[in-house]
Amino acid sequence: MDLGPARVAEIDASGMLAQVAGLAAQLREGYADARAQLAERIVGPSSVAPRDQPDGLVVCGMGGSAIGADLVLACLPAITVPAAVVRGYDLPEWVGPRTLVIAVSYSGETEETLACATRAGARGCAPACIASGGSLAALAEAEGLPWVRVPGGGQPRAAVGRLSMALLAALEAARLTGRHDEEVAQAAAQLEADDALLAPGRPDTDNAAKRLARTLEQRLVVVYGAGPTVPVARRWKGQVNENAKAPAFFNELPELDHNEIMGWTSLPHVASSAVALFLTDVAAGERLGRRADLTAREYERLGVTSEVIAARGSSRLARLFSLVQLGDYVSCYLALLYGMDPTPVDAIEAFKAGLSDPAG
Amino acid sequence: MDLGPARVAEIDASGMLAQVAGLAAQLREGYADARAQLAERIVGPSSVAPRDQPDGLVVCGMGGSAIGADLVLACLPAITVPAAVVRGYDLPEWVGPRTLVIAVSYSGETEETLACATRAGARGCAPACIASGGSLAALAEAEGLPWVRVPGGGQPRAAVGRLSMALLAALEAARLTGRHDEEVAQAAAQLEADDALLAPGRPDTDNAAKRLARTLEQRLVVVYGAGPTVPVARRWKGQVNENAKAPAFFNELPELDHNEIMGWTSLPHVASSAVALFLTDVAAGERLGRRADLTAREYERLGVTSEVIAARGSSRLARLFSLVQLGDYVSCYLALLYGMDPTPVDAIEAFKAGLSDPAG
Repeated sequence: MDLGPARVAEIDASGMLAQVAGLAAQLREGYADARAQLAERIVGPSSVAPRDQPDGLVVCGMGGSAIGADLVLACLPAITVPAAVVRGYDLPEWVGPRTLVIAVSYSGETEETLACATRAGARGCAPACIASGGSLAALAEAEGLPWVRVPGGGQPRAAVGRLSMALLAALEAARLTGRHDEEVAQAAAQLEADDALLAPGRPDTDNAAKRLARTLEQRLVVVYGAGPTVPVARRWKGQVNENAKAPAFFNELPELDHNEIMGWTSLPHVASSAVALFLTDVAAGERLGRRADLTAREYERLGVTSEVIAARGSSRLARLFSLVQLGDYVSCYLALLYGMDPTPVDAIEAFKAGLSDPAG
Repeated sequence: MDLGPARVAEIDASGMLAQVAGLAAQLREGYADARAQLAERIVGPSSVAPRDQPDGLVVCGMGGSAIGADLVLACLPAITVPAAVVRGYDLPEWVGPRTLVIAVSYSGETEETLACATRAGARGCAPACIASGGSLAALAEAEGLPWVRVPGGGQPRAAVGRLSMALLAALEAARLTGRHDEEVAQAAAQLEADDALLAPGRPDTDNAAKRLARTLEQRLVVVYGAGPTVPVARRWKGQVNENAKAPAFFNELPELDHNEIMGWTSLPHVASSAVALFLTDVAAGERLGRRADLTAREYERLGVTSEVIAARGSSRLARLFSLVQLGDYVSCYLALLYGMDPTPVDAIEAFKAGLSDPAG
């Protein structure tokens, strides 16, 4: 099956691939825009002097609004306060007036995130917010909270660049990290250059994303990260689920060597119809890199098609978002191979509606 | 295929089911034994006064040595310091002299955990240790660290009760939580009573674990938790991997409603050959309980066999370990159905050997 522009026009009716191609611009503009919005705003717990750091960081979000937080934290290993990404209704018990809580909801209507924002207030800890509008933006406005508005109207997962940069700018404003102008510019430049290599117009024979999508076709997909690539593995998994509407799972090294690696014997037809992708980054260290190679080799022995994919780039930011970019393209091409419009996620929408219907 | 004592004797050559039946005793004896070993030991950072709490908690471990930490933390929602379970070589940046680090390695030879213990020392933070012996025990002895010895000689995952109780006792000794004599006694009594209902001698027609194993047979297993049952879902996944040598994955509510739920359309043969188990606990709250029911219903609509399994018991400890017990039995019966001895995990052993072989 062809994966060229004609096929894209036919299947990708809502233009997900065009949005994927906008990742570089999202980083560049998102960073500048969020910095501008937060200029002269104090981001941080009111009980902490503006020049001090908070005593901990909790980012609340779900799905496409949460993954950016994982990615940004993986880019900032030097943050010296406890940091957690909370996917749920509840804040950890340790969150208090000196904790920086940041609530991220692309739509501004995610019920889990709204619950966390309200609870943060009850703990004496005014959250910072990131949203395109909705109830979360209204809350931020009403309570005078520092917040970043991102452009709305799309799918949360397609706004990963904007959401990530808004969070990065908020963490900078809270003095948890320094400025990243250069890293963002470099990452955006790399993404832009690579777009040409991954775009629908680029033929299969010379397009890493199309080639990989064909490897994934008809297979159960497992994506493995190690260290900083763990959130990227989670991103790939979610994008295969949502864009290609296909089964995918993620896990991480070295943990999977202690259990998941044993799971490929009793059902050989599952093993032979699975593909394992090992996403590696130099920042994970030599030991984990070696583990990825050895585990991939063992998976091949177990009958699981395996591939190691190494991040490229001059900074964590560039390398991790470059892997995100590749996975985004792969998931869209996989959607085309399945004849699926990548954008609609009806089951999620219907499900949200059912949740709010008390008779449901 | 029969799952009675004769079949067990034939396939379960190394006696995993007998160890599963020992969970009640592991809790009861493990708690008493660990408390006795830690009596008059100060557990906690030396820079924190013995009557004060540490400023954070990090438990380091892998696989079967880590899951007990997840379970115990899920039983202790009121812990008021940041707490993390680290599965890897590295400590989070925020770990310092006032952090309580606990290194758990059943064998005492897990390279990731040994690396963490050494790094903790370098951060000025003498770790507490839990091991059956090995290098970790030797380190603890040499440096005068507080530590708990658990009985050795088995598989780490079969020592989950002992490892969990050792950790619970250590957290009590560090004043992070109060005593749990009553909860442990109640949980052990419940587990003991339920053993009779789940044992190989109990016929299929009246044995929830055997029935469930037959539901899982030949299927891709996904196990979902919500709130306190998330670590139990992880435990079930690992036990299916290691005991039944079969593919299993885990995820959690509400996050999976934002992505994984979309992944069952493009490959209907995968959906129809999968089974989703939703493990629920009353402590997760009504909203998450409702989500579990609705998500299971949606999964059925998508063609995925689904089942909601609610924890029973009078405390979190009893409920979570009761679910662990059920999953342990289920994974062993599934192993029998596949003709697999549950105990050996050759791929993991071979893999560890390959890792330490520089030519590997």
